Amino acid sequence: MLYQIAEKVIELEKSGKKIIKFNVGDPDQPTPLEIINHATKAMKEGKTKYGSAAGEKGLREAIAKQYETKLEKVVITPGSKWAIYAIMKVFLKKGDNIILPSPHWTAYQEIARDLGVEVKLLETSLENNWEIDLNKLESLIDEKTKMIIVNNPNNPTSKVIAENTMQEIFEIAEKKGIKILSDECYADISFKKVKSILDFSQEHFFVNSFSKTFAMTGWRLGFAIVPEKIAKEIIRLNQITFTCVPPFIQEAGIKALSLKEEISKEMKKIYKARANLACKILAKTKLKLYKPDAPFYLFPKCFTDSEKLAFDLLDEGIAITPGSAFGNYKDHFRISLTLAESQIREGLQKLREFLER
Amino acid sequence: MLYQIAEKVIELEKSGKKIIKFNVGDPDQPTPLEIINHATKAMKEGKTKYGSAAGEKGLREAIAKQYETKLEKVVITPGSKWAIYAIMKVFLKKGDNIILPSPHWTAYQEIARDLGVEVKLLETSLENNWEIDLNKLESLIDEKTKMIIVNNPNNPTSKVIAENTMQEIFEIAEKKGIKILSDECYADISFKKVKSILDFSQEHFFVNSFSKTFAMTGWRLGFAIVPEKIAKEIIRLNQITFTCVPPFIQEAGIKALSLKEEISKEMKKIYKARANLACKILAKTKLKLYKPDAPFYLFPKCFTDSEKLAFDLLDEGIAITPGSAFGNYKDHFRISLTLAESQIREGLQKLREFLER
Repeated sequence: MLYQIAEKVIELEKSGKKIIKFNVGDPDQPTPLEIINHATKAMKEGKTKYGSAAGEKGLREAIAKQYETKLEKVVITPGSKWAIYAIMKVFLKKGDNIILPSPHWTAYQEIARDLGVEVKLLETSLENNWEIDLNKLESLIDEKTKMIIVNNPNNPTSKVIAENTMQEIFEIAEKKGIKILSDECYADISFKKVKSILDFSQEHFFVNSFSKTFAMTGWRLGFAIVPEKIAKEIIRLNQITFTCVPPFIQEAGIKALSLKEEISKEMKKIYKARANLACKILAKTKLKLYKPDAPFYLFPKCFTDSEKLAFDLLDEGIAITPGSAFGNYKDHFRISLTLAESQIREGLQKLREFLER
Repeated sequence: MLYQIAEKVIELEKSGKKIIKFNVGDPDQPTPLEIINHATKAMKEGKTKYGSAAGEKGLREAIAKQYETKLEKVVITPGSKWAIYAIMKVFLKKGDNIILPSPHWTAYQEIARDLGVEVKLLETSLENNWEIDLNKLESLIDEKTKMIIVNNPNNPTSKVIAENTMQEIFEIAEKKGIKILSDECYADISFKKVKSILDFSQEHFFVNSFSKTFAMTGWRLGFAIVPEKIAKEIIRLNQITFTCVPPFIQEAGIKALSLKEEISKEMKKIYKARANLACKILAKTKLKLYKPDAPFYLFPKCFTDSEKLAFDLLDEGIAITPGSAFGNYKDHFRISLTLAESQIREGLQKLREFLER
């Protein structure tokens, strides 16, 4: 569905129609110039040769320092998606199952399918403030369950898991002997503080990305912090697949990390203003909304078939993503706030008018 | 063994010892500045966002034009190794087998192992000018054989498969209903013309890389030209793993392709001179050598245990790669000519003296 909408948007734009794109999860900001300049400098200095399959020492060190861990546990990957794929590939076996709170980013499910791993969806609801039901979680665990994935903050709900909930998920996982894979790629620019899996233990799996925090989606730079044994297996997989992340991109990553405080502060400010604006406009509609804990996404309930709504809205020049792209959520849709405030205002006003018809 | 030598080299260099490194298959030249500048321009123009999992249209078009094929058959990958991994993953099943002429680049074997695919080595010999024995090839094919890999020109022998041999391999493959995966990543700078698999058919698998031709190893840019059905499956795999190759790197690739004629001509000239120099010095030793058809590597026979030789030579300040890194070739070793002529002269003179002791 995501792709169908995206293709229809391209088609409409080619025909000259102006579309306000609330369907794209890619920051509208350019990558900060300092980061680009640093990549250029590194290229000119010859950092264009084969690098380590584990990642360059400088970047691994910088990450290890920032997350108070050992360099040996850090693996640099072409995006956090590869980190997720690699962790699941080396840790899970065909026939295993994993638990995935839903609504969810579809990549987890597609990766599981590729690996022959079953996914048990743990549904959450707007009515229950997108809280994870711990009893339901525990009841889903069987002898073949090896992992629970948490996406914290969540795409598409922008829910941050409460600290005590995270504590309880951790305790359940420890008790049952299963691992948590915590994808925290929106955490650095979250409005609400995120309790990281790393705050509980370094024996579980943590992944993060430079994509959202630094507007570096196309650079494909992410990392995993995992137990050393798993790190070694991922490095071996890296060696026989993509070899290494370009060293000059990793140099840019070192620069980005050094600017993290100021860049993430600025990003948060921009997205907070957008979220406030969007919530204010949507409050005047019949849509039901969770006030986002984190940037990028809103996932309102529309009490109607959002696939039909998505195609109707395209005629109005607005692209959204139907909830069915994130699980059994046909009566929700996702709005990405990766647009300037003026566009958000215009698009959501149009949406409001459409809904009032 | 490759890694053990590489690690020992790092250790020795740290202790202050000067090592002439004939063990590295990474061009010593910098990436041409025009290519770097083009990447910078693309970054500044915002080509830092998510791109297509198939590769950017501009680069796919440029490749399709150059290889006289359809854009839909071209997939851009993070290095040719990923192209090989992806083709093998989507085309082969656990329990299948493939035929691999040897000596061979170990990655093919490691990828096969990861996929649960058996590798049948088809050994060639210096005495027979590294020719592929077609009867032996045919006799190795059984009902579980799905693919033969040709690395043309070959790493480590620098042998280019003769046109009529390639024709016969193709006919055997067609007759037996198996596919050829042709890795031609040294072809554009080969001294001898390479008969590409694409000259026979577009129903087999072709992979190539920007690494060697343009001194872009660390950029991780390669591509596959494969039947559309396979292309679609690779694109799907790309989507759930690394997402896309950075768009600004692909822009650099477009620039590189536009400069291919002049850059490859210059590269060939440099490597031809190096190969001539090396052959001239080695002719004065007891080593037996095949005159290389292509740049980068020599794979002489030393009539002794080359693993021991490799460690002995490290004491002399020379790093080579023992033949065991490429199959059952303990009495061969690999020399990479990715060094300036002065270094080649100094290193090989030392080698000659050592062998005369």
